[in-house]
Amino acid sequence: MIVTFVHVWVKPEHLDDFIIATTENHQSSIRETGNLRFDLVQDATNPAKFVIYEAYASDEAAAAHKETEHYKKWRDAVADWMDRPRKGEKHYIIAPRDKSLW
Amino acid sequence: MIVTFVHVWVKPEHLDDFIIATTENHQSSIRETGNLRFDLVQDATNPAKFVIYEAYASDEAAAAHKETEHYKKWRDAVADWMDRPRKGEKHYIIAPRDKSLW
Repeated sequence: MIVTFVHVWVKPEHLDDFIIATTENHQSSIRETGNLRFDLVQDATNPAKFVIYEAYASDEAAAAHKETEHYKKWRDAVADWMDRPRKGEKHYIIAPRDKSLW
Repeated sequence: MIVTFVHVWVKPEHLDDFIIATTENHQSSIRETGNLRFDLVQDATNPAKFVIYEAYASDEAAAAHKETEHYKKWRDAVADWMDRPRKGEKHYIIAPRDKSLW
Protein backbone atom coordinates (compact mmCIF):
# COMPACT_ATOMS: atom_id res chain seq x y z
CA MET A 1 0.00 0.00 0.00
CA ILE A 2 1.36 3.40 -0.92
CA VAL A 3 0.57 7.05 -0.32
CA THR A 4 1.59 9.94 -2.55
CA PHE A 5 1.52 13.51 -1.30
CA VAL A 6 0.96 15.69 -4.36
CA HIS A 7 1.97 19.26 -3.53
CA VAL A 8 0.24 21.84 -5.71
CA TRP A 9 0.82 25.60 -5.92
CA VAL A 10 -2.07 27.37 -7.66
CA LYS A 11 -2.23 30.82 -9.23
CA PRO A 12 -4.31 33.02 -6.90
CA GLU A 13 -6.85 33.87 -9.60
CA HIS A 14 -7.59 30.17 -10.19
CA LEU A 15 -8.15 28.90 -6.63
CA ASP A 16 -11.89 28.34 -7.17
CA ASP A 17 -11.34 26.69 -10.56
CA PHE A 18 -8.78 24.36 -9.02
CA ILE A 19 -10.98 23.43 -6.07
CA ILE A 20 -13.96 22.64 -8.34
CA ALA A 21 -11.90 20.55 -10.81
CA THR A 22 -10.05 18.67 -8.08
CA THR A 23 -13.22 17.94 -6.09
CA GLU A 24 -14.66 16.43 -9.29
CA ASN A 25 -11.49 14.36 -9.73
CA HIS A 26 -11.76 13.30 -6.07
CA GLN A 27 -15.33 12.09 -6.55
CA SER A 28 -14.35 9.82 -9.43
CA SER A 29 -11.02 8.71 -7.96
CA ILE A 30 -12.48 7.37 -4.71
CA ARG A 31 -14.57 4.98 -6.82
CA GLU A 32 -11.48 3.43 -8.50
CA THR A 33 -10.59 -0.14 -7.61
CA GLY A 34 -7.63 0.01 -5.26
CA ASN A 35 -8.14 3.61 -4.18
CA LEU A 36 -8.00 3.97 -0.39
CA ARG A 37 -7.99 7.75 0.02
CA PHE A 38 -8.06 10.81 -2.20
CA ASP A 39 -8.19 13.80 0.16
CA LEU A 40 -7.78 17.41 -0.95
CA VAL A 41 -6.45 19.73 1.77
CA GLN A 42 -5.48 23.40 1.76
CA ASP A 43 -2.53 24.84 3.70
CA ALA A 44 -3.87 26.86 6.66
CA THR A 45 -1.06 29.41 6.23
CA ASN A 46 -1.21 29.72 2.42
CA PRO A 47 -4.56 29.35 0.60
CA ALA A 48 -2.75 28.91 -2.74
CA LYS A 49 -0.96 25.76 -1.55
CA PHE A 50 -2.77 22.40 -1.59
CA VAL A 51 -1.93 18.76 -0.99
CA ILE A 52 -3.71 15.82 -2.58
CA TYR A 53 -3.27 12.81 -0.29
CA GLU A 54 -3.67 9.75 -2.50
CA ALA A 55 -3.56 6.24 -1.03
CA TYR A 56 -3.67 3.14 -3.23
CA ALA A 57 -3.60 -0.57 -2.50
CA SER A 58 -0.65 -1.09 -4.88
CA ASP A 59 1.72 0.62 -7.29
CA GLU A 60 -0.39 -0.84 -10.09
CA ALA A 61 -3.57 0.75 -8.76
CA ALA A 62 -1.78 4.10 -8.44
CA ALA A 63 -0.49 3.81 -12.01
CA ALA A 64 -3.96 2.86 -13.28
CA HIS A 65 -5.29 6.14 -11.83
CA LYS A 66 -3.19 8.06 -14.36
CA GLU A 67 -4.87 6.18 -17.21
CA THR A 68 -8.41 7.17 -16.21
CA GLU A 69 -10.45 9.71 -18.13
CA HIS A 70 -11.13 11.74 -14.98
CA TYR A 71 -7.39 12.03 -14.25
CA LYS A 72 -6.58 13.13 -17.80
CA LYS A 73 -9.44 15.66 -17.76
CA TRP A 74 -8.15 17.08 -14.44
CA ARG A 75 -4.50 17.14 -15.61
CA ASP A 76 -5.39 19.10 -18.74
CA ALA A 77 -7.80 21.45 -16.95
CA VAL A 78 -5.36 22.46 -14.21
CA ALA A 79 -2.24 22.75 -16.42
CA ASP A 80 -2.48 26.53 -16.83
CA TRP A 81 -3.57 27.14 -13.24
CA MET A 82 -0.35 25.87 -11.66
CA ASP A 83 1.97 28.49 -10.26
CA ARG A 84 4.87 26.05 -10.47
CA PRO A 85 5.23 22.34 -11.30
CA ARG A 86 3.49 20.08 -8.79
CA LYS A 87 5.58 17.67 -6.75
CA GLY A 88 4.75 14.10 -5.75
CA GLU A 89 6.29 12.42 -2.69
CA LYS A 90 5.88 8.65 -2.43
CA HIS A 91 5.43 6.99 0.96
CA TYR A 92 4.91 3.49 2.29
CA ILE A 93 1.97 2.91 4.60
CA ILE A 94 2.86 1.68 8.10
CA ALA A 95 -0.56 2.07 9.74
CA PRO A 96 -3.30 1.16 9.26
CA ARG A 97 -1.96 -2.17 8.03
CA ASP A 98 -5.34 -3.76 7.49
CA LYS A 99 -6.93 -2.57 4.25
CA SER A 100 -10.41 -2.99 5.75
CA LEU A 101 -9.60 -0.15 8.17
CA TRP A 102 -9.31 2.33 5.30
CA MET B 1 -12.50 19.65 9.68
CA ILE B 2 -8.73 19.89 9.83
CA VAL B 3 -5.70 17.84 8.88
CA THR B 4 -2.25 18.11 10.42
CA PHE B 5 0.80 16.65 8.72
CA VAL B 6 3.26 15.82 11.48
CA HIS B 7 6.73 15.44 9.97
CA VAL B 8 9.02 13.26 12.07
CA TRP B 9 12.74 12.57 11.64
CA VAL B 10 13.85 9.52 13.64
CA LYS B 11 17.33 8.43 14.72
CA PRO B 12 18.26 5.40 12.57
CA GLU B 13 18.80 3.13 15.57
CA HIS B 14 15.25 3.79 16.80
CA LEU B 15 13.19 3.18 13.64
CA ASP B 16 11.61 -0.03 14.98
CA ASP B 17 10.92 1.52 18.39
CA PHE B 18 9.25 4.49 16.72
CA ILE B 19 7.11 2.32 14.44
CA ILE B 20 5.91 0.15 17.34
CA ALA B 21 5.10 3.12 19.62
CA THR B 22 3.38 5.10 16.86
CA THR B 23 1.32 2.12 15.69
CA GLU B 24 0.11 1.74 19.28
CA ASN B 25 -0.75 5.46 19.36
CA HIS B 26 -2.56 5.05 16.01
CA GLN B 27 -4.68 2.19 17.36
CA SER B 28 -5.92 4.29 20.28
CA SER B 29 -6.20 7.56 18.35
CA ILE B 30 -8.56 6.19 15.68
CA ARG B 31 -11.00 5.37 18.50
CA GLU B 32 -11.16 9.00 19.71
CA THR B 33 -14.39 10.92 19.19
CA GLY B 34 -13.80 13.29 16.29
CA ASN B 35 -10.82 11.44 14.83
CA LEU B 36 -11.20 10.91 11.08
CA ARG B 37 -7.75 9.58 10.14
CA PHE B 38 -4.48 8.79 11.88
CA ASP B 39 -2.22 7.32 9.19
CA LEU B 40 1.49 6.64 9.67
CA VAL B 41 3.51 6.71 6.46
CA GLN B 42 7.24 6.37 5.75
CA ASP B 43 9.10 8.35 3.08
CA ALA B 44 9.97 6.01 0.18
CA THR B 45 13.29 7.83 -0.31
CA ASN B 46 14.29 8.11 3.37
CA PRO B 47 13.28 5.37 5.83
CA ALA B 48 14.08 7.66 8.79
CA LYS B 49 11.47 10.25 7.74
CA PHE B 50 7.80 9.70 8.61
CA VAL B 51 4.55 11.62 8.37
CA ILE B 52 1.59 11.19 10.69
CA TYR B 53 -1.52 12.29 8.80
CA GLU B 54 -4.06 13.28 11.44
CA ALA B 55 -7.60 14.37 10.49
CA TYR B 56 -10.05 15.61 13.08
CA ALA B 57 -13.64 16.84 12.90
CA SER B 58 -12.74 20.08 14.71
CA ASP B 59 -9.93 22.06 16.33
CA GLU B 60 -11.39 20.99 19.68
CA ALA B 61 -11.15 17.30 18.78
CA ALA B 62 -7.55 17.79 17.64
CA ALA B 63 -6.71 19.59 20.89
CA ALA B 64 -8.41 16.84 22.95
CA HIS B 65 -6.05 14.30 21.34
CA LYS B 66 -3.11 15.97 23.09
CA GLU B 67 -4.81 15.45 26.47
CA THR B 68 -5.18 11.68 26.06
CA GLU B 69 -3.07 9.18 27.97
CA HIS B 70 -2.01 7.42 24.76
CA TYR B 71 -0.74 10.69 23.24
CA LYS B 72 1.23 11.58 26.39
CA LYS B 73 2.70 8.06 26.57
CA TRP B 74 3.75 8.31 22.90
CA ARG B 75 5.17 11.85 23.29
CA ASP B 76 7.34 10.79 26.23
CA ALA B 77 8.42 7.50 24.63
CA VAL B 78 9.57 9.04 21.34
CA ALA B 79 11.24 12.15 22.82
CA ASP B 80 14.77 10.71 22.75
CA TRP B 81 14.28 8.98 19.39
CA MET B 82 13.78 12.19 17.39
CA ASP B 83 16.68 13.25 15.19
CA ARG B 84 15.33 16.82 15.16
CA PRO B 85 12.15 18.51 16.44
CA ARG B 86 9.01 17.32 14.67
CA LYS B 87 7.00 19.79 12.62
CA GLY B 88 3.22 20.08 12.30
CA GLU B 89 1.53 21.66 9.27
CA LYS B 90 -2.15 22.52 9.64
CA HIS B 91 -4.50 22.20 6.67
CA TYR B 92 -8.19 22.71 5.99
CA ILE B 93 -10.10 19.85 4.40
CA ILE B 94 -11.66 20.59 1.01
CA ALA B 95 -12.67 17.05 0.03
CA PRO B 96 -14.28 14.88 1.18
CA ARG B 97 -16.69 17.43 2.61
CA ASP B 98 -19.10 14.88 4.02
CA LYS B 99 -17.85 13.47 7.30
CA SER B 100 -19.60 10.14 6.62
CA LEU B 101 -17.18 9.61 3.71
CA TRP B 102 -14.23 9.44 6.08
